[in-house]
Amino acid sequence: MKKINLAVVGATGMVGRTILKILEERSFPVNNLYLYASAKSKNTKLTFDSKEYIVEELNESSFDKNIDIALFSAGGDISKKYAPIAKEKGIIVIDNSSAWRMEKNVPLIVPEVNSGDIAWHNGIISNPNCSTIQVVVPLKPLHDAYKIKRIVYSTYQAVSGSGIGGIKDLENGIKCLSNEKYPHPIAYNCLPHIDIFMDNGYTKEEMKMIDETKKILNDDTLRITATTVRIPVKNCHSISVNLEFEKSFELDDVYSCLKENKGIIVQDDVKNNIYPMPINVDGTDQVYVGRIRRDLSVENGLNLWVVADNIRKGAATNAVQIAELAAKNL
Amino acid sequence: MKKINLAVVGATGMVGRTILKILEERSFPVNNLYLYASAKSKNTKLTFDSKEYIVEELNESSFDKNIDIALFSAGGDISKKYAPIAKEKGIIVIDNSSAWRMEKNVPLIVPEVNSGDIAWHNGIISNPNCSTIQVVVPLKPLHDAYKIKRIVYSTYQAVSGSGIGGIKDLENGIKCLSNEKYPHPIAYNCLPHIDIFMDNGYTKEEMKMIDETKKILNDDTLRITATTVRIPVKNCHSISVNLEFEKSFELDDVYSCLKENKGIIVQDDVKNNIYPMPINVDGTDQVYVGRIRRDLSVENGLNLWVVADNIRKGAATNAVQIAELAAKNL
Repeated sequence: MKKINLAVVGATGMVGRTILKILEERSFPVNNLYLYASAKSKNTKLTFDSKEYIVEELNESSFDKNIDIALFSAGGDISKKYAPIAKEKGIIVIDNSSAWRMEKNVPLIVPEVNSGDIAWHNGIISNPNCSTIQVVVPLKPLHDAYKIKRIVYSTYQAVSGSGIGGIKDLENGIKCLSNEKYPHPIAYNCLPHIDIFMDNGYTKEEMKMIDETKKILNDDTLRITATTVRIPVKNCHSISVNLEFEKSFELDDVYSCLKENKGIIVQDDVKNNIYPMPINVDGTDQVYVGRIRRDLSVENGLNLWVVADNIRKGAATNAVQIAELAAKNL
Repeated sequence: MKKINLAVVGATGMVGRTILKILEERSFPVNNLYLYASAKSKNTKLTFDSKEYIVEELNESSFDKNIDIALFSAGGDISKKYAPIAKEKGIIVIDNSSAWRMEKNVPLIVPEVNSGDIAWHNGIISNPNCSTIQVVVPLKPLHDAYKIKRIVYSTYQAVSGSGIGGIKDLENGIKCLSNEKYPHPIAYNCLPHIDIFMDNGYTKEEMKMIDETKKILNDDTLRITATTVRIPVKNCHSISVNLEFEKSFELDDVYSCLKENKGIIVQDDVKNNIYPMPINVDGTDQVYVGRIRRDLSVENGLNLWVVADNIRKGAATNAVQIAELAAKNL
């Protein structure tokens, strides 16, 4: 594979730093590396492959350099402003924000699910919402096998999803200090509130899970609802997933179908108290699935419990996997 | 109302102590009070209505005294053994364990929902599972108005539901000490595992929610599934509830229907970040309902977020409310 000139925008954030770690771990073929962040983080020193890099302030001329791929993870406003500038210069943008995800000419990719969608990108490729990434990995083979009719999501989301501010609110809250990132204390509490509220009463996070699942699975007929909840866990999101299929299934076949996928680890031995949990999944790149059981309240119903590292597979790892797909064609 | 001779079995436990507090708060007409616990807690001194009581060890002659009502909260094994002994002596047993809940001649009562079932008790009345108590309070008026077809529960349950051991595991876990009550650490983690696992892959807690909801709402045609999860919250259970009704509804009418019930507090002003949360509900006796919104993925679908104090309304308060019903007929 050709060596790639790479930019990371938002390099000092939690996802940005993890992107650098994962590029190293996966031996991504980096030629030149440019690290950008806001004025506040300018001149931060970061190490990549034993070499020190100085973080530069992002500005309109940041993309005048010879860059092949830019990984953006600096929030929606930065992406809205700078992704078109980078794209204009012929750079492939892989964007972790929600800014471009639902645009018709922007593919929304989870490589285990719809890597083929890379074919029709137009300069910008979106990295999906963290909860959506982890849940579509097991949903895809099940949808192919049994055709999903309806999904009910209830999430148990970690504070790392809100970046360093989320972690600080939890750590400070445990020490009885007050919250800054969240509207309410998160220590020993749970907030049925992630991202802003929309006019329909749903949060933006809930609508992302609904809309992005349909786009990634390329099926607008899917009927989906969601309740997304922040809980006092540091890292790794968990999701209670209730599914209704068109076709009937045998539970043994569901297990086989999930186990065949190398992005999935089935962890389901309840007699020995084995099921996916945030503290065990932390630091991994697979999606863990357990508590697999028939839902007898509906025809062809199934319940799943899905856990993944939201900073790695839910953000950084998935972005690097997309970069690997994009790099193949360079 | 006649003054009642009362026994509390399991008086030194978290629920037992809260029962004493609530009897005081509600000015329950206590004549003599007998406090029982295991040998380990024998001779513990507890105060009720400014008077000191010595806890006695429970044994087969504990019910030879002149007792009208015995409130049991000492686990299923104690209830199985001692409730029939108490009943034999003409004592009305109000049992907080799961031992008798599904017996045909044992009413399972949430006073806001099915107080009339007190009429057919046979000496033992069961107090339902904590999660079930809190959720049936809002389900009852909605079932009466729109007839529920199907329910999907996902719970977010506090460690106080496991008694003092649960609280200790969370507090110790925060200090990086190891767990004793749970099979895994609960600090910064969540466990999709409450009570034991059954042969069908569900936990006993999940089956309690399914079976007890049907019994309390007196409707075996209800189709219900559940995923129950322990989270690192000290007190108050939260439940994500997805409902499908037979009849169509207007959201405004759902609000009115819930607000009319004095056991319910509707807390749903998302534009001002107001929704039910464990830290605010702690210490209260009502069931808090918020995030009320139409689920467009199914005909006549509705999502709710339901929070209550699992030690008070989910156990002690509900038991005392049942005792008040029973005392009326004495």
